[in-house]
Amino acid sequence: MSVYEKLTALRITLPPIATPAALYVPYAITGNLLFLSGHIAKQDGKPWVGQFGLNMTTDRGKEAARSVAIDLIGTMHAAIGDLNRISRIVKLMVLVNSAPTFTEHHLVANGASELFGEVFGEPGKHVRSAFGVAQIPLGSCVEIELVAELR
Amino acid sequence: MSVYEKLTALRITLPPIATPAALYVPYAITGNLLFLSGHIAKQDGKPWVGQFGLNMTTDRGKEAARSVAIDLIGTMHAAIGDLNRISRIVKLMVLVNSAPTFTEHHLVANGASELFGEVFGEPGKHVRSAFGVAQIPLGSCVEIELVAELR
Amino acid sequence: MSVYEKLTALRITLPPIATPAALYVPYAITGNLLFLSGHIAKQDGKPWVGQFGLNMTTDRGKEAARSVAIDLIGTMHAAIGDLNRISRIVKLMVLVNSAPTFTEHHLVANGASELFGEVFGEPGKHVRSAFGVAQIPLGSCVEIELVAELR
Repeated sequence: MSVYEKLTALRITLPPIATPAALYVPYAITGNLLFLSGHIAKQDGKPWVGQFGLNMTTDRGKEAARSVAIDLIGTMHAAIGDLNRISRIVKLMVLVNSAPTFTEHHLVANGASELFGEVFGEPGKHVRSAFGVAQIPLGSCVEIELVAELR
Repeated sequence: MSVYEKLTALRITLPPIATPAALYVPYAITGNLLFLSGHIAKQDGKPWVGQFGLNMTTDRGKEAARSVAIDLIGTMHAAIGDLNRISRIVKLMVLVNSAPTFTEHHLVANGASELFGEVFGEPGKHVRSAFGVAQIPLGSCVEIELVAELR
Repeated sequence: MSVYEKLTALRITLPPIATPAALYVPYAITGNLLFLSGHIAKQDGKPWVGQFGLNMTTDRGKEAARSVAIDLIGTMHAAIGDLNRISRIVKLMVLVNSAPTFTEHHLVANGASELFGEVFGEPGKHVRSAFGVAQIPLGSCVEIELVAELR
């Protein structure tokens, strides 16, 4: 199955590319590396506000991380026109909006990691850092940055 | 206008390369990528101390981020001798020293992003992650890490 | 001295590759760059729990960062089979689990930076960002991500 067939099988519709909230660009290509800006979790087009350990559960966080992964795939599609050009998801940085007591960032991040595995298969396996930050722009609960390799 | 003419037009004098506060180097080149260490905001040569949501305003933060961008440009000049060798500012990571209530990291980060746009023009457009951290070395209010592409 | 002779001289035994706590891989190679996932500090195989400014000292943190560096070297050995293939440690991102009052992240991070200098010599010199995060998966006190260049 191609990446697009997998997206269809998962009933995922790619969103249009997200407009950065500020003065930067959503993606940059250098050599065969595609760098994506940090994408914040959104719900109905607005920041998905919440802080883990305070007013968000790990399960909801997994959903939020999965939704960011879909937005990242949408941005990659807009950037390169054909997702099959992605030879490897190289790296995620997963920022989890955390009260100092929350320690399940890795489980939240799995919401994104699982989706990349489902959609891209073996080339979807990536290195990752996940950790708790004090806050995220606009109060969003999760922010994810990505590096991919192009063929 | 060359990059240096733009710096002059903006009345920006590049500082000498910052001495790392610890056991690392200010820059590393691999292939045609230039990686810069996280640079902390300074005022009069000392850490620009402050925490957003507590004792720093967003406007002051923009100034602090702009000053870090100038320091980063100074380090790039020292690293490669000629800023016109930079074909692209690829990526910024902007760390904002935040109380858990502050949510305008993207506006603080714009202080740096705007300057890169002014100085480098189109090649100054970059991807970016900005987020709130619990603290920054020596209590500085902003820390920025950069990746650039060399021609 | 080769890298392995230096490890022996320092009486360092490389651990087996760490099993990721979640759905990602410990390393990824793209071109001649080796990316490692964030590795958390462990003690006796369990997360080395602690928060600086609350219940961890800077000196203990240096030890924790050094132990993460050893784990990272173990992962690099497992990834490429021969550590002498590393032409350069390019970059560290050092996350320090911090109460909002702690400001010595750079000193904690030195525990890792020093070890890379001792083991790899000149090619061990790297760029670095070190900062305080709100929490780290499983409550670990330090997490470090690494990029290296291969020959």
